Amino acid sequence: MAKVPGGLWQNLIAVQVYGANTGVGKTVVSTLLGHHFARRKGNTRWLVRYIKPVSTGPSDEADEKYVRRYTNQPVATLFKYDQPVSPHLAVRGVKFIPTDAVIVQKLHAKLKADARACAMSKGEMGISLVETAGGVLSPGPSGTPQADIFRPMRMPVILVGDHRLGGIASTISASESLLIRGYDLDAVVCFDDGGKHENSKYLKSHFQSNGIPCFELPWIPDLQNLSMDAEIGKMMTYYDETSSDRSTYKLAGRLIDSHVARLRNLNSMSSRTKNVIWHPFTQHKSVEKPDDILTFDSAYGDYFQVKHTARSKQGVVMKNEESLLFPAFDASASWWTQGLGHGNPELSLAAAYAAGRYGHVMFGGATHEPALTLAERLLKAMKNPRLAKAFYTDDGSTAVEVGIKMALRASCKRYAWNGSAEDVGIIGLKGSYHGDTIGAMDASEPCVYNKNVDWYRGRGYWFDFPTIKMSKGRWFVEPPPGMGEDFGPTEYFEDLDRVFNLEERGHSPRYEAYIESVLDSLVTEKGRKFGALVMEPVILGAGGMIFVDPLFQQSLVRVVRRYKFVANSSTPEDADSWTGLPVVFDEVFTGLYRLGRFSAASFLQVHPDISVHAKLLTGGLLPLSVTLASESIFQAFWGDEKSDALLHGHSYTAHPIGCHVANTSLTQMQIISRGDLWKGYQKAWREPATTDAEELHFTMRGEEKGIWSMWSKKTTTKLSEHPLVDHVVAIGSVLKVSLRDKSGSGYSSTAAAGLRDALLNDVTEHATRVHCRVLGNVLYLMASMNSKDLNLVEITLLQQLSKL
Amino acid sequence: MAKVPGGLWQNLIAVQVYGANTGVGKTVVSTLLGHHFARRKGNTRWLVRYIKPVSTGPSDEADEKYVRRYTNQPVATLFKYDQPVSPHLAVRGVKFIPTDAVIVQKLHAKLKADARACAMSKGEMGISLVETAGGVLSPGPSGTPQADIFRPMRMPVILVGDHRLGGIASTISASESLLIRGYDLDAVVCFDDGGKHENSKYLKSHFQSNGIPCFELPWIPDLQNLSMDAEIGKMMTYYDETSSDRSTYKLAGRLIDSHVARLRNLNSMSSRTKNVIWHPFTQHKSVEKPDDILTFDSAYGDYFQVKHTARSKQGVVMKNEESLLFPAFDASASWWTQGLGHGNPELSLAAAYAAGRYGHVMFGGATHEPALTLAERLLKAMKNPRLAKAFYTDDGSTAVEVGIKMALRASCKRYAWNGSAEDVGIIGLKGSYHGDTIGAMDASEPCVYNKNVDWYRGRGYWFDFPTIKMSKGRWFVEPPPGMGEDFGPTEYFEDLDRVFNLEERGHSPRYEAYIESVLDSLVTEKGRKFGALVMEPVILGAGGMIFVDPLFQQSLVRVVRRYKFVANSSTPEDADSWTGLPVVFDEVFTGLYRLGRFSAASFLQVHPDISVHAKLLTGGLLPLSVTLASESIFQAFWGDEKSDALLHGHSYTAHPIGCHVANTSLTQMQIISRGDLWKGYQKAWREPATTDAEELHFTMRGEEKGIWSMWSKKTTTKLSEHPLVDHVVAIGSVLKVSLRDKSGSGYSSTAAAGLRDALLNDVTEHATRVHCRVLGNVLYLMASMNSKDLNLVEITLLQQLSKL
Repeated sequence: MAKVPGGLWQNLIAVQVYGANTGVGKTVVSTLLGHHFARRKGNTRWLVRYIKPVSTGPSDEADEKYVRRYTNQPVATLFKYDQPVSPHLAVRGVKFIPTDAVIVQKLHAKLKADARACAMSKGEMGISLVETAGGVLSPGPSGTPQADIFRPMRMPVILVGDHRLGGIASTISASESLLIRGYDLDAVVCFDDGGKHENSKYLKSHFQSNGIPCFELPWIPDLQNLSMDAEIGKMMTYYDETSSDRSTYKLAGRLIDSHVARLRNLNSMSSRTKNVIWHPFTQHKSVEKPDDILTFDSAYGDYFQVKHTARSKQGVVMKNEESLLFPAFDASASWWTQGLGHGNPELSLAAAYAAGRYGHVMFGGATHEPALTLAERLLKAMKNPRLAKAFYTDDGSTAVEVGIKMALRASCKRYAWNGSAEDVGIIGLKGSYHGDTIGAMDASEPCVYNKNVDWYRGRGYWFDFPTIKMSKGRWFVEPPPGMGEDFGPTEYFEDLDRVFNLEERGHSPRYEAYIESVLDSLVTEKGRKFGALVMEPVILGAGGMIFVDPLFQQSLVRVVRRYKFVANSSTPEDADSWTGLPVVFDEVFTGLYRLGRFSAASFLQVHPDISVHAKLLTGGLLPLSVTLASESIFQAFWGDEKSDALLHGHSYTAHPIGCHVANTSLTQMQIISRGDLWKGYQKAWREPATTDAEELHFTMRGEEKGIWSMWSKKTTTKLSEHPLVDHVVAIGSVLKVSLRDKSGSGYSSTAAAGLRDALLNDVTEHATRVHCRVLGNVLYLMASMNSKDLNLVEITLLQQLSKL
Repeated sequence: MAKVPGGLWQNLIAVQVYGANTGVGKTVVSTLLGHHFARRKGNTRWLVRYIKPVSTGPSDEADEKYVRRYTNQPVATLFKYDQPVSPHLAVRGVKFIPTDAVIVQKLHAKLKADARACAMSKGEMGISLVETAGGVLSPGPSGTPQADIFRPMRMPVILVGDHRLGGIASTISASESLLIRGYDLDAVVCFDDGGKHENSKYLKSHFQSNGIPCFELPWIPDLQNLSMDAEIGKMMTYYDETSSDRSTYKLAGRLIDSHVARLRNLNSMSSRTKNVIWHPFTQHKSVEKPDDILTFDSAYGDYFQVKHTARSKQGVVMKNEESLLFPAFDASASWWTQGLGHGNPELSLAAAYAAGRYGHVMFGGATHEPALTLAERLLKAMKNPRLAKAFYTDDGSTAVEVGIKMALRASCKRYAWNGSAEDVGIIGLKGSYHGDTIGAMDASEPCVYNKNVDWYRGRGYWFDFPTIKMSKGRWFVEPPPGMGEDFGPTEYFEDLDRVFNLEERGHSPRYEAYIESVLDSLVTEKGRKFGALVMEPVILGAGGMIFVDPLFQQSLVRVVRRYKFVANSSTPEDADSWTGLPVVFDEVFTGLYRLGRFSAASFLQVHPDISVHAKLLTGGLLPLSVTLASESIFQAFWGDEKSDALLHGHSYTAHPIGCHVANTSLTQMQIISRGDLWKGYQKAWREPATTDAEELHFTMRGEEKGIWSMWSKKTTTKLSEHPLVDHVVAIGSVLKVSLRDKSGSGYSSTAAAGLRDALLNDVTEHATRVHCRVLGNVLYLMASMNSKDLNLVEITLLQQLSKL
């Protein structure tokens, strides 16, 4: 997960040479290409460099020595170990074992120097041949497969095929391991074995049908029983002859063509995008400049690889020594989806496994392992005894629609309302947002999102509520403006944990009285009908990252559940049955560990009747959503008629890829949630632990160790003290920074946009560039649940804020 | 794509032994396991069988001979070739080269015989060790990689790791090639090389973190310079000792445990599903029997692998010689999604590549290669000069909502309507269905689907229309019941091509007059407002596979585009701008080759302003949808305010995996659309070609070679003549069979269900079991666009129909 720029330069072709196995001729191919480019005919003079990142074995047998001998060009080895074994064994007993990040950063520095050399000699092009060790997945010093170590730079690959018996299989398998890690194969190279195994013939046909050219090179001479001098002479002749061979010209030409095509494509993407793409949530009139669209070449771990724009280059010396790509920390977690980082090889393999086992199989009247297992695991992990059934859809919006359909049917059926003819609305909170389809939109109050949606009809009532904030280092719960009378004055708390300590805070007579009085006015006086309580627990996301007082949400549920929405209606006998109205929690954003807990409902100590999940469900890989419901909700659709059923179901409902990836992600997340990384965060937020009783209190809660965040307590407090900051909140992986804005707040505000742009285009040396999103005057930050670079983001944020 | 049962028996463990490379000891592991099970201590006696599906090289060196020598158990080789080279080379000059299907069917027959042998000896268990050749992807006789050849049976795998230098990489790569093909790895086996490369140590840790146990076996003795007899003696000792070794017991135990767990899981799945799954479109009260839920173990090509149910077993001799799984042809194309068959390795690899390169990257203000390329390709391939922009969402329903939002905004803006306050509806066809979210539902007339959806408000007017049918071998266009006066009498046509020859049929004054009179009554007389024409071209899918007269749909577009929906409104000057109302085509089901053409709009020769696509977009792998729109629609959202924009966008909008898979699928589909398979279908439907002029007529049309179907003309005609069949229609991959039903038609009818069940549970020997869906009294069939087994489905259908 190293923060390193992608391996793409204007005038330098940086290419990795991988082997289908050990002993297939990687060094010969590297040497041949080095020899060729150093002597290549044409107008361009080529600077040739050879790099061996990790080498094992005695120095006099080193690959770099061999390559220098035949190419007479500069060579470099970055990490050398004497023992002639795999790097992960060779480092035993060695004092300094480089991490994966150190290896890739050193490699990048070396290539940057190569690019600088090209830039200094005007008009020249360079090629740097990076020769890997062993096979594609041979372990590096840390034990990580080297294809994973080098992945952040994602340089194009030459794969040297295996000419031996069995080489067809090993070459294709090696290529598959590269492809599932997101590498582009520029070429497969095979030595012509004179018709013995005919591997190259088969491989040519195989790879060409996959759009990857395969090149056959002349057989390496037989060197058995030759003296050292004779061997060198023979090989010198081989390289001299082969280097000017037609096949070598074609291979080298392919590398050049690929490079040129890659640059041309990258440079044209933002303008081509403007031509054909209608962007989500975008006023296109305001994104007219070429820099307004970022081009993502790839992503890995926490980082996007972004094409440099004119703006992002400002102040950076860009004399072609810089990579054309820069890493930007994905601090919106790609619209709140990321759980395990981009390009996660385990999720990638899980997706491919399910695709290979099933493709997609229809779910009507059928079942399959991934969907069944996921339903069982989710229902168990929710620890909500009410939830009994899982209904799959494709995204948060569709899952919310299902939740609303479920709740409305249940209440209309029990209260004998005709929902199709009568206005039956929902009860919610002001500023809520549940998705973009009409039904989900109708569950939110009128706002900028639905202002010009012609079929939008807000159906319900949305409550005011008190919010959680931290300002000047102090936590408090603030009533809505001008409503202190109803909600009570601003309450201050020693720490965030006390805000969420609902036992300690007790029931709130004031909250309950307010809620009851509003309901009385709506239901009794105005005769309005309501069919569900629909709420995002803890945070209203798209509404502006508004943190709601959990005691208010808990009070709302308590009142709604005991309230008589229909006079004289009887309460069901079954204890798990819903009362008052079905309670729907939209945990699309806040659930599945986003706030550090499996379910955000646990913060409120409420068991909803319906719970909606999406986003993090697949660890951030692809769309899948699920609506969990209680047995009493399920029973509302039980009947003799087909039309009594929930007649909903998208074609890809419960698609095996999504479900299997979700299962894989859940396993990973559960490991992370119990791991040292999170324990560190939790401990840091508890300090200073005031009393033993308090420590015990955290321990007693088991996995829910109070309230904590992946963002440091120190930075959060510091931010809250900044004069430009109105308030902050941090829970789990979410950090909200609300800026003071004289021009008014809300979605249509443009405050915070300046800070957002400054974070992305920070040109301080070694600065971490941060890609984030704003909602009006709110800048929020969020990362994968296994991110280790949050401190880097915090430094950038504090620095840029100090410049405002 | 062989029709073969999955490789899973009650009392027989059928396991495949793959090697990470050639020469890693597959035969030794097979021998060892054979030796062990034949002598295994315990209450169970084991029947041991060894099978080499394809063997090359001299008979006296054959693996089967070796295994028999040391195990003294029956062995078999299915296909033998003398030359000691790869099977795809060894078959050169050989007269009979077995196809992949023949190999896998012969293997299944052999394993079935093994299972029979177990069943005959009561109380015994069997293990059949199927040893593959070379590496995982070594080519079989046909040239297909063997892991693809054996994939339809999907037997569990023992992967023998490579103990040599480089073996870590090749073993992991080999495992990845197996996993992306959907195989389950029961065990990885490695020989203990005494600490030389320590591969097994590394592999153990690697695979255990992936949930795959790795076993270390004692090193194979050094046999160099030994006489044949000495060698045999030494190996005999090795097998004797190692076979009763702890490590071998553990490996064998794992195979047994996996088998037992697999059976237990499979047997419990339908009841566990009943506990936790809320199925789509399902009245759960009517699926109370255990057999009502089918368990899909996997799928490949055209076939699901389905767990036998009590019903599916009726009449089949099931004395444990039959596999527990049976292949069922997926004849609903898994709810209309499949384009390239299940478990397609190219799509699987494409999904993994994009997952590896990006994971998911957010699309707001950004771009990436797969989304951009897909938009460009779709816009080009549509051949609709109006379409300019692509907007991505997740499924057909969300894409339709976007299309409706787009169209309504454009018309409300131009006609200065306040859509939020006034009732602005859509114009559509009776029986249309556009999706399950509230907005998409509102665009359909009241029907069984939305009857009990409380927030459903049908917003629009839905026209009656004439339909296409074939009955008693004759094609005709039939007016709606009792409306012959408006639409004209039933028209008969020589062939389907003439129904769709709209030039020849000319404009229909009768259709246009009818449409105008209805619009006059709605708009002029009643003052109703309409904002869009929303229509599924050619077929109304969920509404009952209703085939609409294309001339009527064309007439409707023509009239709507010239009609004055607001008096004195001016017509825009730009020729590509929409007039009358924006025309939205919902091609979610009918587009992207489903009817044999890229776009279903081409059948109507109409260029819609908005075109909606999903389902086949990813070739049938995972959810992705796109709404294509014209520049004049796009301009309706251009403005100074954020709220003027289309504020829609799901988190996974334009997810790279979906887009890249879609690009891969489009390429494959384009190849298929020009290939011999489709040419054959097209030719068959043209025969007998009556005149040269007619032939010319087809040729002139270029790729749109008249109307044709993947279902044979002969069978279609035959079906139409059956007394129980009301009518049929076949276009592209869709075959509709409407049955006569005395109990009334419509979705709530239960006719055709009997035929559906009979097709799935056909127990005739060699019968093709067919899984299909019904809509009321309509049974429809549909397959992937590369299916080659449609004739098998036709045979089953005709046979079962004859039994009714």
